[in-house]
Amino acid sequence: MADMNGAESLVHTLLDSGVEVCFTNPGTSEMHFVAALDHIPGMRSVLTLFEGVATGAADGYYRMAGKPASTLLHLGPGLANGISNLHNAKKAGSGVVNIVGEHAASHLELDAPLTADIEGLARPVSHWVHSAKSAADVGADAARSVQAANTAPGQVATLILPSDTAWTDGGQVAAPLAPPIRVKPAEADIAAAAGALDGAESLLLLGGEALTAETLELAGQIAAQTGCALLSEWSNARMERGAGRVPVPRVPYPIDLAVEVLAPFKRIVLVGARAPIGFFAYPGKPAVLSADGAEIIELADWSADLHGTLEGLCVAAGAEGAKPDLATRNPEASVSGPLNPDSIAQVLGQKIPEGAIVVDESITTGRAFHPVTKGAAPHTWLNNCGGSIGYSLSCAIGAAIACPDRKVLTLTGDGSALYMPQALWTMAREQLDITVVIWANHSYQILRGELINVGVQNPGPRAIDMLTLDRPRIDWIAQARAMGVDGVRIDSAEAFSDALEDAFDSTGPRLIEVSM
Amino acid sequence: MADMNGAESLVHTLLDSGVEVCFTNPGTSEMHFVAALDHIPGMRSVLTLFEGVATGAADGYYRMAGKPASTLLHLGPGLANGISNLHNAKKAGSGVVNIVGEHAASHLELDAPLTADIEGLARPVSHWVHSAKSAADVGADAARSVQAANTAPGQVATLILPSDTAWTDGGQVAAPLAPPIRVKPAEADIAAAAGALDGAESLLLLGGEALTAETLELAGQIAAQTGCALLSEWSNARMERGAGRVPVPRVPYPIDLAVEVLAPFKRIVLVGARAPIGFFAYPGKPAVLSADGAEIIELADWSADLHGTLEGLCVAAGAEGAKPDLATRNPEASVSGPLNPDSIAQVLGQKIPEGAIVVDESITTGRAFHPVTKGAAPHTWLNNCGGSIGYSLSCAIGAAIACPDRKVLTLTGDGSALYMPQALWTMAREQLDITVVIWANHSYQILRGELINVGVQNPGPRAIDMLTLDRPRIDWIAQARAMGVDGVRIDSAEAFSDALEDAFDSTGPRLIEVSM
Repeated sequence: MADMNGAESLVHTLLDSGVEVCFTNPGTSEMHFVAALDHIPGMRSVLTLFEGVATGAADGYYRMAGKPASTLLHLGPGLANGISNLHNAKKAGSGVVNIVGEHAASHLELDAPLTADIEGLARPVSHWVHSAKSAADVGADAARSVQAANTAPGQVATLILPSDTAWTDGGQVAAPLAPPIRVKPAEADIAAAAGALDGAESLLLLGGEALTAETLELAGQIAAQTGCALLSEWSNARMERGAGRVPVPRVPYPIDLAVEVLAPFKRIVLVGARAPIGFFAYPGKPAVLSADGAEIIELADWSADLHGTLEGLCVAAGAEGAKPDLATRNPEASVSGPLNPDSIAQVLGQKIPEGAIVVDESITTGRAFHPVTKGAAPHTWLNNCGGSIGYSLSCAIGAAIACPDRKVLTLTGDGSALYMPQALWTMAREQLDITVVIWANHSYQILRGELINVGVQNPGPRAIDMLTLDRPRIDWIAQARAMGVDGVRIDSAEAFSDALEDAFDSTGPRLIEVSM
Repeated sequence: MADMNGAESLVHTLLDSGVEVCFTNPGTSEMHFVAALDHIPGMRSVLTLFEGVATGAADGYYRMAGKPASTLLHLGPGLANGISNLHNAKKAGSGVVNIVGEHAASHLELDAPLTADIEGLARPVSHWVHSAKSAADVGADAARSVQAANTAPGQVATLILPSDTAWTDGGQVAAPLAPPIRVKPAEADIAAAAGALDGAESLLLLGGEALTAETLELAGQIAAQTGCALLSEWSNARMERGAGRVPVPRVPYPIDLAVEVLAPFKRIVLVGARAPIGFFAYPGKPAVLSADGAEIIELADWSADLHGTLEGLCVAAGAEGAKPDLATRNPEASVSGPLNPDSIAQVLGQKIPEGAIVVDESITTGRAFHPVTKGAAPHTWLNNCGGSIGYSLSCAIGAAIACPDRKVLTLTGDGSALYMPQALWTMAREQLDITVVIWANHSYQILRGELINVGVQNPGPRAIDMLTLDRPRIDWIAQARAMGVDGVRIDSAEAFSDALEDAFDSTGPRLIEVSM
C-alpha cells in the first residue's frame, strides 16, 4: 500500500475503525473518495438525492447500530443541505462521521463559485471539526473523527477533506482510537438520590441510554420498591417498549399538560435526562415545567454509564428483588370506524410487529399513541430530539440498514414528510423494509394550536392560509410512485389495519396515506 | 399605532422600505410575525414547503425585481435548510432580507431542542447579520437590513428576531435608509482601459449589471470600434439576450475549452466580472484560465456603476457612433428527429417566447444552448452563480412573482431538480406561469466527466452506481402530479416543440419531462 493516496487511507482507516456504511451525495471534489470506495471492498455506499437524507440516515443508523456511519457531502452547500438533520443528530446524541469535500488548498484563495466557509457552517452542529492538512494526515484525522463520533453519548464529528489531500499519494492508514469510558456517579451521590426516591411525590426521570430494555427493568424495580413515578423526556433517541417491558410515559408536549403532570413531584432524580423545560417560550407561561421549589437531583447526564448508575440506584434503594410493573399485551381486537388519533392508536396497538422499529414524527396526530402502544408487541420507538421537522423518512433509512431483519414503521405528518420526500427514492433503491405512514391532515396542524398558545386568539384568513397545505392537496400516492415506492390511500380504521398487515407481510418499502 | 408590537413594526417598516413579498415557512416562534402579516395589508406572503425554496425564490425575485423580498424562516434548522440557496444568492449578488425567528431571550439559556447558533449558521452566507435586542429596536433593525440587502450589487442581510421582541409592545416604525451610491472608476483608469482594448488580442469581459440590454449595446459599440472580443462570465445572475441584442458568449465551463477560448487574449478588461478561474481544481490543470502573462485590468467590480463605466469606456474609445453587431432572429424552421443537446437547442431557438425569463440549470445538456438561442426572440437568461445545484425551480418562483406578465421557462437537469421538487407545489399554489423542462438523463452526468477530469480513468461499477439515478427511475409526471402540476413526457424534437408551444399558449405551471 506504498502508493496509497489520501482518499484510500481514509477509506481503509474508516473500515478499520468500524465504519461500514457511507451515506453520500458526492460531487466533483469528492471523486477520489468515490474512486477509493469503488476499489476498496467493505464499505456499503448508499446514494441519496439530497444531503439531508444522508445526515438523517446517519442519525438513524447510529441509534440502532450503536456505532457511527460516515457521510460524504459536497463542499459547503452540500454540508448546508445536511445541517438540519445534523442538528437533530446532535440533539439525539447520535455519532456521525461527517465527511465534507473541499477545494484543493491552492484553489481556495481564488474564491470559486462553490467556495464557502465550511468550518463556520459545520461548527454549530458539530462537536469536533477538522480540516485535513495533507494526504499523510488524512488517516490519523479519520481515526480521530471516529473516536470523536463514538464519544458518549455520540457526537457529530466533521472531517473536511480538501481534494488535494485526497488525490495526493502518501496516505497512511491509522489504527482505531478508543473513545473515553463512560463513568458512574460516586456512591454517595447514588445513595443520596436513592434516598430522595420515596413515594408518589418523587420522580425518576429517564433519558438516553436509560431507556434500553435492561435499564428500564432496573428503573421498574426501583419504582416498585420506592413508590416513585417513572417518566421519560418528551423526545427520546431510542426507547424500548411494548408488552413485557416497563412502561414509561413521556412528559407531555403541550405545556399546560406537562405542568399538570409534573405538579405532584417535590423530588426529581435525573438519569440520562435533563430537567424538563418547554419546547418553546410562550408569553405568560413557564419555561421550567417542574413544580416551584421541586428539588432537581442531576444524578447522571446522558454521557454517563447509565446502566451502572441504575444498577447502583437499585442496590441503594434495596430494590434488587422487587418485581417491576410490566406492560401486558393488548387483547386481540379488530378496530373499525372513522380514523382519528384514538382509533389509529388502537390499530397500532394491535399491528406493530414484534421487533419493529417505529420512527415517530406524528406531531399532532401522535399524542394518543403511547398509552395504547405500550401493550403492543415488543418494539423500539425513536423520536425527533432536535425539533427540526422532516427527520423521520431519512432516519428510517439508517435504522433499516442497521437492522435489516427488523420491520421499520415510519409515522409522520404530511407537513414533516414534505421536507425530504427524496428519502423515498433511497428506500426504493436499497429495497429497504420500511412502511411509511403519512397522516395527511393537509395543514401545519400544530401551528394552529401554537397561534393560540402565543396569544393570537383570532387568526385571520391570511394567517390560516400560511398554515394550510390543501391548495393544492399533495397526492402522496403519486409522490411515492415518482420515487419508485408503491402506495395506498385509506380512510377507515379497518382499511388502515389491512394496509399495515399487507405491508408487514411483504418486504420492501411501502407508503400508506391516511386521509384525516 | 401606539400599541404596536415588534412584529407589527417590522412588517410596517419592511413595507415602507419597499419590501412587498415574503417567502415563508414559519413555525411557532414566528407566529406573531404571521399574525402581523395577517392584519397589516400590503405584503404578499408566499408559503413554501421547504426553506430552500423560500431563499431560492428570494434570489430570483431580486434578479428580476431589482429590489429585495424577505424570507421568514423558523429558527436555526429553518435557516439551515435555506443556506444553500442563500449561498447561491450571495454569489449572484442578490439582495435578500433574510428573517429568522429565534427563541425568546429568557428561553435561550435553557438550551431547548431547537436552540442553535443562528448567528454562526448565518454568517458564512450573509453580508450582514444582526439579532434584534428589543421590540423598540426591531423597526430600526429592519430598515438597516433592507439597506444592507440593497447595497450593490445586492447582499444577504440576516435579521434574527427573538420571539419576545416580536410579541412585546413598543414597536417603532423606522424610515427607509438609502444604500451607498454605486461609483464609477476614475477617468484616467477608464482611458487606460480603453487604450488596452485594441484588436483581436484584447477582451472586454463582462458580468453583473454589465449584461443589461443597454450596457450590452455600449459594449457592442466598443467592440465594433476597437476590434476587441466580448465575453461574459460562465455564470451570470441575469443577462439580456436574443435577436436585436449584442450577443456575448460565455467563458466555457469545461476547463480545457475555457483555456483554449481565452488563449488569444493578451489584455483583458474586467467590467463587472472577475478574472476567469476554474470552477474546480484538477490535478495537473491550471486554475487561472487566462493565458500566461495576459494583462488583467480590473476596471470596475460588480458593485460599481457599470452603466456609467461602459458609457465612459465608449467615449474614451471613440466608439459613440459605432454600430454594434446585433444578433439576428433565427429563420423559422421546424425541428424534428431524436432529442440531443443540438436538436433541443434548435427547438429553444425557435420557441423561447418574447420577453421570456429562462432560468437555466441544464448542466451537461445545456452547453449547446447559447450559440443557438442568441437568435431567439428577446429574452432574459439566469444562471446559477453559486454552484449549489437545485436552485432553478425555486429561483423561477421569485422571477415569476416579480414579473407576472412574462413567461418563465426553467431548464434543469433531473439530478438538480431533485434537490427541491417541493418548489412545484408553490408554483401550483400561486398558479405561477412557469414551464419546467426536466432533462431526464437519469444520472449525475456531469460527474462522469469529472471522474475522468480528476484522473480516474476507469471507474468501476460501484463508482458508476454512485453517479446513476436510474434504479429506480424518477417518474417526473407523477412527481408533478403529486404537487398539483400537470406534466407531459416527450421523446422527440417535434413533441418537445409542441409541448413548449402548448405550455406557452396557456398560463399556470406545467412540467415537461424530456427523456434523454
